[in-house]
Amino acid sequence: MNFRKAELICTGSELVSVKSNSYVPLFSARLRPLGFRIHREHSVGDDPKAIAKMVNCGLNNADLVITCGGLGPTFDDLTRQGVAKALGRKLIHSKYAERILKNNYNLSVLPLNFRNQCRIIDGAKMLENANGTAFGQILTPGRKMIVVLPGPGNEWGPMFDAFVPGEIKEFFKLKEGAVRMLRLKIAGLWETQAEKLLKPVMRRFPDADYTILAGAGILEFNFTVAGKTPADTAKKLSTVEKACRKILGNAVYGAGDDTLEKVTGTLFRKKKATLALAESCTGGGAGDAITDVPGSSEYFMGGVTAYSDKAKTEILGVKKSTLLKHGAVSAQCAAEMAEGARRLFKTDYAASVTGIAGPDGGTKEKPVGLVYFAVTGKDLRTRTFTMTFRHDRAHIKRCSVNFVLDALRKIIQ
Amino acid sequence: MNFRKAELICTGSELVSVKSNSYVPLFSARLRPLGFRIHREHSVGDDPKAIAKMVNCGLNNADLVITCGGLGPTFDDLTRQGVAKALGRKLIHSKYAERILKNNYNLSVLPLNFRNQCRIIDGAKMLENANGTAFGQILTPGRKMIVVLPGPGNEWGPMFDAFVPGEIKEFFKLKEGAVRMLRLKIAGLWETQAEKLLKPVMRRFPDADYTILAGAGILEFNFTVAGKTPADTAKKLSTVEKACRKILGNAVYGAGDDTLEKVTGTLFRKKKATLALAESCTGGGAGDAITDVPGSSEYFMGGVTAYSDKAKTEILGVKKSTLLKHGAVSAQCAAEMAEGARRLFKTDYAASVTGIAGPDGGTKEKPVGLVYFAVTGKDLRTRTFTMTFRHDRAHIKRCSVNFVLDALRKIIQ
Repeated sequence: MNFRKAELICTGSELVSVKSNSYVPLFSARLRPLGFRIHREHSVGDDPKAIAKMVNCGLNNADLVITCGGLGPTFDDLTRQGVAKALGRKLIHSKYAERILKNNYNLSVLPLNFRNQCRIIDGAKMLENANGTAFGQILTPGRKMIVVLPGPGNEWGPMFDAFVPGEIKEFFKLKEGAVRMLRLKIAGLWETQAEKLLKPVMRRFPDADYTILAGAGILEFNFTVAGKTPADTAKKLSTVEKACRKILGNAVYGAGDDTLEKVTGTLFRKKKATLALAESCTGGGAGDAITDVPGSSEYFMGGVTAYSDKAKTEILGVKKSTLLKHGAVSAQCAAEMAEGARRLFKTDYAASVTGIAGPDGGTKEKPVGLVYFAVTGKDLRTRTFTMTFRHDRAHIKRCSVNFVLDALRKIIQ
Repeated sequence: MNFRKAELICTGSELVSVKSNSYVPLFSARLRPLGFRIHREHSVGDDPKAIAKMVNCGLNNADLVITCGGLGPTFDDLTRQGVAKALGRKLIHSKYAERILKNNYNLSVLPLNFRNQCRIIDGAKMLENANGTAFGQILTPGRKMIVVLPGPGNEWGPMFDAFVPGEIKEFFKLKEGAVRMLRLKIAGLWETQAEKLLKPVMRRFPDADYTILAGAGILEFNFTVAGKTPADTAKKLSTVEKACRKILGNAVYGAGDDTLEKVTGTLFRKKKATLALAESCTGGGAGDAITDVPGSSEYFMGGVTAYSDKAKTEILGVKKSTLLKHGAVSAQCAAEMAEGARRLFKTDYAASVTGIAGPDGGTKEKPVGLVYFAVTGKDLRTRTFTMTFRHDRAHIKRCSVNFVLDALRKIIQ
């Protein structure tokens, strides 16, 4: 499908020195359903000349230019000046903004830094900020649109969602429901496997737009479709979704903002089942992930991280003979760990992880990345799983966490 | 101090759609000691025309242009073409590269995708890849330098470190030791506190360059100095470092690539002391962090994540009367959790965390973000700590993990 071009300009000295930039996926997910794709992203410091240059560069290339950051009250917040410079316009004082700030903060006189926040580029439409003092601005020079947003996620996010889609739809005369996107969340397939499986779908629906994002043992498959009417778009989206789900089956664990810990946790809550963990090589990472979900105390009772062999035998009750015969990295040990955790926490289900995260400790028979899992529960014979993950220690740990969460999901659903 | 300008171009469709960009801090930390700062970063898709445009844009603005990504063997790896286009040069087959690939992979005939990897921009110097098949390239059109690197961190990182500083120093005639950077790692101070404390240092040494990066309860304070001779630079660096350390004292937990879990772990290993954990609100996150360090099994025996009250009393031996009188989120409960973990795992030391990670569960007396900690050990009266952290659940959990690691560091050192 044909996307219009958008250009993202992120401003702030930290973005060209010490900070990772996580704006792109957030903006991209918001822009694709509006029929725009980010053609280029630029990060520049707090330098109005450099900002102006990038804004002009963006306007030459794309229909929509978004700036993000540099609208704060301090001396180094210079995006307003940069955009004004690019357009050869003045910054003027907005009485409207002044009235709103006075009202919201119950002030009779504005302090100097608040006065800065009332400066608006001549001709701009102001966007109110529900979570801060920086106003957003929208300008429409020629047939293009510039959207000027504050940097903090809790400010620009709600501001974008409240105002920008409407403004974009109106200005670019988009039809309601003309474009829609879906993000399918997949576990237990490698990227190349998923690509191969999904190729027939992509061939059958060549008009849709597809991207795959690989995580640690999990994937995200995004597709965007365009239709002539909202009903047509919805039908196309659902046709592609059905085709994907038919191929991927139970490997699809959710959609949109779903995470594995949320989906698995929700299943436990729905079934009123309780869970305990026995971790070794993940060191507590599986419990950490599960407890990232608010309200997880309803079903997650706790876990034992048995990093030493002694902890495995003395606390979880793994038999010494099991360790002698099979070693701590074995299906037998994983099974006894899970069973031990279930006894200890008196839960409906328990799961375990034991493996070699590396970089040391691997042998020819048991290489780095080899991980055993077990899941046990009421009315369930203990089941074990083996996986061999690659890359570094952190990745092997993270893949193991996702694998055990997914194993629990498949068993409890 | 005066930095030369560098321009970073990151290529790959995922970087303008679904993926966060973490290149900047990694490149910045490598470029500052060479006297370069990143003036702008650009992300573009796998589109040779767009890449060529950004390369030319970069050459017009900066002395050094670095591209990262798009050197793989597949059809959508197009950075070589983009850079060649920008310079109006041809791609030619490198027999040298062919020989190396044949040698490294024990091949008599190169498969097609390997042949792609042997294409080099006319006039470029090739950089060998210790961890992959994509060669890096260095070009020096006019008085500028272009460095073409592969995208994966385990490929470009070692390649950069092995070749690029030397090439930059030679081409730009940098004096050895003319610029040096130090990253001080700080725990237990808010960003504003650290800024206030360090202001006198920054005023006393205005020639140095400073940045602060805030994490979850931890900070990084970076400074770069330039000198006339290596000895002069070293002296300046050490003077600024001493001044910082004098002010910050024990809040400095390390430098460079040190992490809290590595520093604390190293202390445990040196003292041949063992550690166990009892976690509640962190859900296993502290153990996860500790076991991110290779070899942590030497000192970390394990932990109990006691998410439910029952797990706290039955497994860790917290008194029911303590829960009734003080609640699970209390100094008393934290102390008994740590003591219980130490008994259970028979370790020299144990630490605990119990708090309210939110968003629900807070009261007026015990708000979201309130977290209690305890550390206990041989020859040590159990000590407890209270903190109130802000922001969201994930941040509160991460701050709690760092706090307990830092408390352990301070007690064992």
